[in-house]
This record gives sequence, C-alpha cells and structure tokens, in this order.
Amino acid sequence: MHELHTVAFDGDDTLWHHETVYQYTHERFRTLIERHVPHADVDGRLHATEMRNLKMFGYGVKGFTLSMIETAIELTDGAIPAEDIGELIDWGKEMLAHPVELIDGVVATLDALAPHVRLMLITKGDLFDQESKIARSGLADRFAHIEIVSVKDAQTYRRCLAKHGLSPKGFLMVGNSMRSDVMPVLGCGGQAVHVPYDVTWVHERVDDDRLPEGAWRLERLDQLLPLVERLRQAA
Amino acid sequence: MHELHTVAFDGDDTLWHHETVYQYTHERFRTLIERHVPHADVDGRLHATEMRNLKMFGYGVKGFTLSMIETAIELTDGAIPAEDIGELIDWGKEMLAHPVELIDGVVATLDALAPHVRLMLITKGDLFDQESKIARSGLADRFAHIEIVSVKDAQTYRRCLAKHGLSPKGFLMVGNSMRSDVMPVLGCGGQAVHVPYDVTWVHERVDDDRLPEGAWRLERLDQLLPLVERLRQAA
Repeated sequence: MHELHTVAFDGDDTLWHHETVYQYTHERFRTLIERHVPHADVDGRLHATEMRNLKMFGYGVKGFTLSMIETAIELTDGAIPAEDIGELIDWGKEMLAHPVELIDGVVATLDALAPHVRLMLITKGDLFDQESKIARSGLADRFAHIEIVSVKDAQTYRRCLAKHGLSPKGFLMVGNSMRSDVMPVLGCGGQAVHVPYDVTWVHERVDDDRLPEGAWRLERLDQLLPLVERLRQAA
Repeated sequence: MHELHTVAFDGDDTLWHHETVYQYTHERFRTLIERHVPHADVDGRLHATEMRNLKMFGYGVKGFTLSMIETAIELTDGAIPAEDIGELIDWGKEMLAHPVELIDGVVATLDALAPHVRLMLITKGDLFDQESKIARSGLADRFAHIEIVSVKDAQTYRRCLAKHGLSPKGFLMVGNSMRSDVMPVLGCGGQAVHVPYDVTWVHERVDDDRLPEGAWRLERLDQLLPLVERLRQAA
C-alpha cells in the first residue's frame, strides 16, 4: 500500500445537493407538457434530447434548459406557446440561482481530514455555474486545488494528477457516480470511494453491484474519516 | 525593464475568428424578428437581455442562445411560433459546431516566439465550448499552459500568474479586447498588446484612444514578433 496523500471530492451530489433541483424541474416539465400532450413519454424524450445534445452542449443547466425547450417543441409538434417556453427559461434561471445546500456531514468531514491529507475538489459541468456554486458553498478555502472539468474520464484525472505532481497510488477520489468518480480513477491507478446519492441521474448509473478492487462504497459521507484512517494505517 | 518570460494569448478574435459568427447570427436574428415586428430595436433589446443575463449565464453560445429566445418572446409579445424558436436553437448549435478558423499569421507568430518565451493561452467563455475550440484549432500543443476562465479581471490574471509561479513584470498578454486582455493585465503589473479585431462586440469596447503605459497596439498579429524582440532587447 502507498501512503494516502490526497482525498479529492466531486461537487454535485457529493458535497452539495444538485440532482434534487433537476428532479423538481423534471416534474414541473412533465406537468407542463402533459397539459398539451397527455400521456407523452416526457422523461424518455427529454433524456434522448439531452444525450443527443451532450456532445454539443456538455453538462450543465444552460444545455439542459435548451434541451427542455427542444423537447417541448418536438413533443407538442410546435404547438407549445412562446409563453410556456419563456417559463422554461425562467426555470433554468431558478436552477442556476438555487441556494447551494451542503450534504450532511460535509464540513465536519473536510475539517477532520484536513490535518492528514491534501484536499481537492474535482467537479464537472459548466465553468461559470460551478464557480458560482463553489463560491456559494463556502467551501473553497478548504481545498488545496480546485479543478472544474468538462468531462470526467481517465485522461481528465491523469491530467489533474500530473498538473499537481500527485502520484495516483496515494490518490483517493470520493463521489456519487460510479461512471464519473470511481471507474476512471481506478483506470489510472488511483483509489475511489462511492457514496451514492439517493437520486442518481440515469446517465450516471452503472451496474453498482460489481465494486472493483481499489474501490469502496459508503452510505454516508461521515463514514469517510474512519475509512481514510484505516487506509492510512494500512499504508 | 524586466526580462519578458511569458507571452499569453487570448483565444476568440485573437487567435481564431469568433465575432464574425456572432455577427452573422445577429443578422439572421434581426431578419427573423422583423418578419414578426417590423422596425423593432432588435440589436438593442438583445444586448439588454444579454447584459441582464450575464450574471446568471456567463459568456458563451448557450447563454447567448437562451438570450436570443428570451428576446424573441419579449419583442413579439409571445407571438413567435415555437418553430422559429426551434430555429434559434439550431443556430446556437451551428455556432458551436462552426469550424475554427485561425486568424492570419497565428501559426507563424507562435512558432517564431516559441524558442524565446513561454507561450500561454488564456481564454474566456464556456468551458466545454472553449475546450472544443482549442482542440479544433490544432494549437493546443504550442502552449505551456492553457487557462479557460469565466471572467477576465485583474484577480483572474493574478490567480493565473500565481498558479504557474510567473512574475507579472515579465508577462505580456496579447488580445483584441482592451477591457478583458489589456486593462486588467496592466492592473496587476503586467504588460499587454492590443490587436483590435475588425468587429468588436459593443460590451468589450472601451475608449481606445487612451493607451496607458505598459500597453501597445498592433494592427496585425504578425507585427508581434518585432515588438517582443524589441522588448526583450530593452530588458
């Protein structure tokens, strides 16, 4: 075992609530569309639009809002009034302005880890929106490095590690997504902790039962400190 | 004089054409709106919407597209058909997919500077869009450091310099915007070269006649090499 030097955290749905805001907007979107087209497959069609646009828009609220508008036009066959589309834009703005609510145990966990390891934040999404969230979270000063990335694959993690001269062996990533926070980190020789969020976006789900070597799963973030202590003692 | 160690470039409208794509979309937007509302102040209203939304959306095509939609709904008093709004989204996608066309002299200038100074790219805008543009520009390998930032103020430049351990005195920023590339760099003790682009977004304009100490203005990028040589000899 190599000595653990860095614990990196994902932002959305790991340090602060995020998916709940999306879920709420999904619900409102369903209600709005069903006023025009009852029994439409709103969720399925919106997801399909998002996937189609991902290569063009990347992740984030602005792209999501554009995908909602596109889906609304398609599902209503162009019958949706402009007023309703204006409402979709307002929802996007509400999402962007939504207060950043920290997940239980975040501050205590970061404070307890700080004396022992380097703390890092690696968050995916829209630069402007993520910067604003990090500022509003009040957590920025707790991290030695903050990286906002557009995609979380092994190459991204390799670049982040190299940039700060960190060896993957002593690097532990903590996040709610197997696909974005766990698998790619293992792929470049690091370790990872999966802390599932109650609601996890369908695109982020992988078969959770197979937990590969170098990965752990915790139910809550406040269980992280004992795990890190164990890993440091085993080193 | 301190020895020049780093020459940093802005991206949009400094290394590659950008504003031309926006101008073209503005033109199409004017034409579309005037079909519904002749003699509307389309440019003025779109600009006002963009400024109002800037704090929420930041810079970039996705925010611009949402602002176009919002303006279209307002100017037509909700009468714009969904089909036309769908077209606005398509324009946004066209802008995002538009080929990255380098400005004349870019490659030769970078290659000529490379043996003498560290080259850096500091570009503002949407993370996903800028990463895609940098990749498509084919220039990424030429830069020692690439920074994509959401806003270009003195604090941003200070952070970028500190991050890479660069002293402001030997730092020269090259860009088309007085407001984003020149003034804030002078503000933190660096030097800057203003290379105006033919078309400059109204929000980026400042009174160009007053060129403060530590700043130069060139008509074309291929005039940069002689200036850098002069500055290096004077050091």
